[in-house]
Amino acid sequence: MFLYTKNFDEQKAKAMEGLRKALEAGKVDRDIITLLEKINSMENYFTTSSCSGRISVMEMPHFGDKVNSVWLGKWHREVSFEEVLGAIGRHRKGQLWFLVRSPILHVSARTMEDAVKLLNLTIGLGFKYSNIKSVSHKKLLVEIRSTERMDVPLGKNGELWVSNEYIARIVGIANSQVRRFKRKLKRLEEEVERLKS
Amino acid sequence: MFLYTKNFDEQKAKAMEGLRKALEAGKVDRDIITLLEKINSMENYFTTSSCSGRISVMEMPHFGDKVNSVWLGKWHREVSFEEVLGAIGRHRKGQLWFLVRSPILHVSARTMEDAVKLLNLTIGLGFKYSNIKSVSHKKLLVEIRSTERMDVPLGKNGELWVSNEYIARIVGIANSQVRRFKRKLKRLEEEVERLKS
Repeated sequence: MFLYTKNFDEQKAKAMEGLRKALEAGKVDRDIITLLEKINSMENYFTTSSCSGRISVMEMPHFGDKVNSVWLGKWHREVSFEEVLGAIGRHRKGQLWFLVRSPILHVSARTMEDAVKLLNLTIGLGFKYSNIKSVSHKKLLVEIRSTERMDVPLGKNGELWVSNEYIARIVGIANSQVRRFKRKLKRLEEEVERLKS
Repeated sequence: MFLYTKNFDEQKAKAMEGLRKALEAGKVDRDIITLLEKINSMENYFTTSSCSGRISVMEMPHFGDKVNSVWLGKWHREVSFEEVLGAIGRHRKGQLWFLVRSPILHVSARTMEDAVKLLNLTIGLGFKYSNIKSVSHKKLLVEIRSTERMDVPLGKNGELWVSNEYIARIVGIANSQVRRFKRKLKRLEEEVERLKS
């Protein structure tokens, strides 16, 4: 069985090089950088991908077709009604959705024991959808994820199905979800180094 | 480390007794029973809970407060516009949501190797959110889960924010998600016994 990751240190060195480039290119969500640094400072873990959570307006040919989906607007923070309306204004064809996604971090662990320690810590800090996403001789991957989420159909092929008033209301709900998961991220940032001891 | 579940056979016997009672009481979603039987027929697995996926209308004081949430309508199948409207008619207070949830099965595995085999099979069959949910000396739990989901705010404290036309449209999208995850369940039912070999 796969109790530890082969060539963990080599893999980590490569991942850290990739992260360094992503940081230089400004491709990492800013408010998650300190958390990534803390995780990567521990010898038994490294991050492979991350998103600090987001609100978005997305156009997709049909549900689940990620490949042909287009973001009309994407924000890793609270948004204003006007910003969302601006994104909706760019809609032309396909299904139009308003989405909220919780933060998501993928963390590679050296051993299964390390993976389980991180899993249990994050579940305890409110990231209740955290799990072990894959187990192989190549990697032991922990996914850190929370419950906040919205999937609201707004229209189709240029036609809008909802009122401006409705959009204002769902923006309000989405912003409260963003505040909620940002608080959880902050707490994770404060507590994650407990794994060192 | 936790490579196998302690007292697996005793735990399985208890779980099977619980399942037998739930079946007698009609508490198990009908179209998932054959799948449960097939999983439980294998000596290295048993199911601990399951839902075949659902559409629901729910009233909750605020997002994430499951304890004080009330289902105004819940269906493990496609629904009609009239059924959903009937459920909405029973709304009085709190946030009103229209929800779709994918099937979810929790399966206890004898060893970590058994858990990983099941995980990889289900991901390959389209249950892309499948994962290992908990790892301890008491249990190795695989969660089988798919991507279909909707979370649509409909109103608050008795006030409805959307039109009947909008409700008809989201019912249509929800029903297409139900057809999609039912097909996946059928395929899992056909393929799960490959784990025997």
